[in-house]
Amino acid sequence: MSGKPLYIRNASQLVTLKGSSDAPLTGKAMEELHLIEGGSVWVEGGVIQSVGTDKKIRERYGSRLAEAEEIDATGRLVTPGLVDPHTHLVFAGSRENEFEMRLKGASYMEIMNTGGGIHATTSATREAEAERIYKESRRRLDQFLRHGVTTVEAKSGYGLSLEHELKQLEVAVELNRKHPVDVVSTFMGAHAVPVAYRGRPDEFVDEVVREMIPEVARRGVAEFNDVFCERGVFTPKQSRRILEAGKEYGLAPKIHADEIEPYGGAELAAEIGAVSADHLLKASSEGIRAMAEKGVVAVLLPGTAFFLMAEMADGRKMVDAGVPVALSTDCNPGSSPTVSLPLIMNLGCLKMGMTPAEVLTAATINAAHAIRRGHEIGSIEEGKKADLVIFDVANYMGLQYFYGSNHTEVVVKNGKVVHRRG
Amino acid sequence: MSGKPLYIRNASQLVTLKGSSDAPLTGKAMEELHLIEGGSVWVEGGVIQSVGTDKKIRERYGSRLAEAEEIDATGRLVTPGLVDPHTHLVFAGSRENEFEMRLKGASYMEIMNTGGGIHATTSATREAEAERIYKESRRRLDQFLRHGVTTVEAKSGYGLSLEHELKQLEVAVELNRKHPVDVVSTFMGAHAVPVAYRGRPDEFVDEVVREMIPEVARRGVAEFNDVFCERGVFTPKQSRRILEAGKEYGLAPKIHADEIEPYGGAELAAEIGAVSADHLLKASSEGIRAMAEKGVVAVLLPGTAFFLMAEMADGRKMVDAGVPVALSTDCNPGSSPTVSLPLIMNLGCLKMGMTPAEVLTAATINAAHAIRRGHEIGSIEEGKKADLVIFDVANYMGLQYFYGSNHTEVVVKNGKVVHRRG
Ligand SMILES: [Zn+2]
Ligand SMILES: [Zn+2]
Repeated sequence: MSGKPLYIRNASQLVTLKGSSDAPLTGKAMEELHLIEGGSVWVEGGVIQSVGTDKKIRERYGSRLAEAEEIDATGRLVTPGLVDPHTHLVFAGSRENEFEMRLKGASYMEIMNTGGGIHATTSATREAEAERIYKESRRRLDQFLRHGVTTVEAKSGYGLSLEHELKQLEVAVELNRKHPVDVVSTFMGAHAVPVAYRGRPDEFVDEVVREMIPEVARRGVAEFNDVFCERGVFTPKQSRRILEAGKEYGLAPKIHADEIEPYGGAELAAEIGAVSADHLLKASSEGIRAMAEKGVVAVLLPGTAFFLMAEMADGRKMVDAGVPVALSTDCNPGSSPTVSLPLIMNLGCLKMGMTPAEVLTAATINAAHAIRRGHEIGSIEEGKKADLVIFDVANYMGLQYFYGSNHTEVVVKNGKVVHRRG
Repeated sequence: MSGKPLYIRNASQLVTLKGSSDAPLTGKAMEELHLIEGGSVWVEGGVIQSVGTDKKIRERYGSRLAEAEEIDATGRLVTPGLVDPHTHLVFAGSRENEFEMRLKGASYMEIMNTGGGIHATTSATREAEAERIYKESRRRLDQFLRHGVTTVEAKSGYGLSLEHELKQLEVAVELNRKHPVDVVSTFMGAHAVPVAYRGRPDEFVDEVVREMIPEVARRGVAEFNDVFCERGVFTPKQSRRILEAGKEYGLAPKIHADEIEPYGGAELAAEIGAVSADHLLKASSEGIRAMAEKGVVAVLLPGTAFFLMAEMADGRKMVDAGVPVALSTDCNPGSSPTVSLPLIMNLGCLKMGMTPAEVLTAATINAAHAIRRGHEIGSIEEGKKADLVIFDVANYMGLQYFYGSNHTEVVVKNGKVVHRRG
């Protein structure tokens, strides 16, 4: 575990985001990347030991340069490892046929009638052995890594029964143990009302609250508890009950809120002290204000709106209102089958009016805070995990200006080089 | 040059697009990819020798399998090499600072006043030595290759004087000679009215027609002649004069048409027999009809509209009207700094209403026809150049469904493996 020191030297720009470990950044502070030109980092034992100009690092470690593994970042951008705080990583199957049907004009109901939609993934995931789900999900995690992502949150919610929710969560736990990318696990039994409970959602809520949450907590396979609060899925009242139950068992609340219509999800998130509220396309102004006051992170998912050809959440407005904004892929087989957090940042600029600095803050330190990892990851500071990315652009603006490409060249996780582009 | 045969075997889907060499595909035919499940290709001397099911290829070449380089494409999609028929590949410098200014609310005029805009690139390109322009452009070409692109068209137009236009064109010719990606060269002296000719555009048109076009043709450094036909740049009358002059010298016409307002560009393209008309966001219905009648390829550039946060050209309407549609990055430092033809296809689906099959046709065989290469490239057929891509998805729908990622795994150019993802 100790091994050689790692010396990343002379980045044309090093984005440190220093001083952001205690709380997510808001407002103007989202623009302050704390850049070092000609920046270097010294890593040992998987931990960042020192950050500064190359001159400073050479002065401090000059006698030990020969023993270090050196990576020349000249002409390159170095940032904290990207963090994706909202994915539905763990599932079986794919649904490209539905996508084509939709582009050819099929309605939602026509697609559902051919066996499509979320229940298709639920059936596939229930039927699949854990090993197959593991392999398919590991492949996605490999792809995340190639896009510069070093930590992802992963939700259950395609099992919708205790047995199958646990199967999904255990896959997430195993991935976290075995894969270089860290996987932070969220229980989301209340992702949809299962077919068998149609017309009886409260009975399903009972099951989530009385059976699933206690058992998930007992096994220690999740850290967060999430619910899909939307008309026709779970009401704010049901959502509150589920999230309160999770809190009692030590599962921190998250919420899928106000995606389709204003439904009080943002307000509920603030009241209940949720760590994040996600989607928020239709969040009310009062809800946004309440989130800003309580410091609830808004996890925005522009890829989902892009893929569904819908309107975007108003990222610009939320940043200006003082809400800490994070960005995420929402990786899932129905509404956002992507692993490209770099494209999500492009969309943050081009479709949400955020600036290049803001979207980088949103995909690093603010994303880390959205999964309560702000003290460990998301910035390049002494004592933090050595999760870093070297990009083949000269400055942070280049990540957005040279849009549509994955600029990831080298990924360092826990101080080890885990990906190098061929 | 002969070397070993190349045997690409057992693709889960092989997109052949057979029978499309004589003319671009239109209407319903854009949906007909002519797929082979379990498809294989046998290549020798840089040329496709045989295409069919793996069984068929093994029967035919069974005795020679041992001598071939074999690539297993099991579970993968194989398509013709992607073709980008509209780029401004050859220039110096980059303008990410302008992009950030724009996102922070600066107006076009404010950006121009800081020395930005097209004239910034013209100045940088005029000042740069050919060698520097070559190196910067080669890097972009490397990136195109990594995105599965095996042929690009490249326009001049940042010189705006005979000397500097020739410098750009000669860089394109040298890239074509030395780089695995084929570069097809277009003269576009009429890209903008240079600062020195402000208020006297006809004098510049004289220079283009009398001095530049003859000399460009004499040196054989371009095959096409293009003009920016738009209010405030070149009128339809000036554009016609420039394109007719090119035709006299054997340069086939192309036109930047109707990007900002309906200006008769599509109509002019049909009248003059242009190979393609490009942009077309505001093309009139009559113009579209005329293009369909004359078989002028519509080269659509959804990345440009995406990057400029503008409305898209109506790709769906053009396909339905029988216009042969192609897609392109428009790679350039002002309005589309991307090399990702895969993302452009995603935008064709998500922003222009085209289907996964149509966008693939648009980025292969129709793009080939947009640069008069339909007989050489753009489909996988016996006798054509062996330009192929292996993608890490199981079917053509996956390229669009798994949006935002570059799925290119292996690129074969002229029968050689020129890229393999690490
Ligand atoms: Zn979600
Ligand atoms: Zn152009």
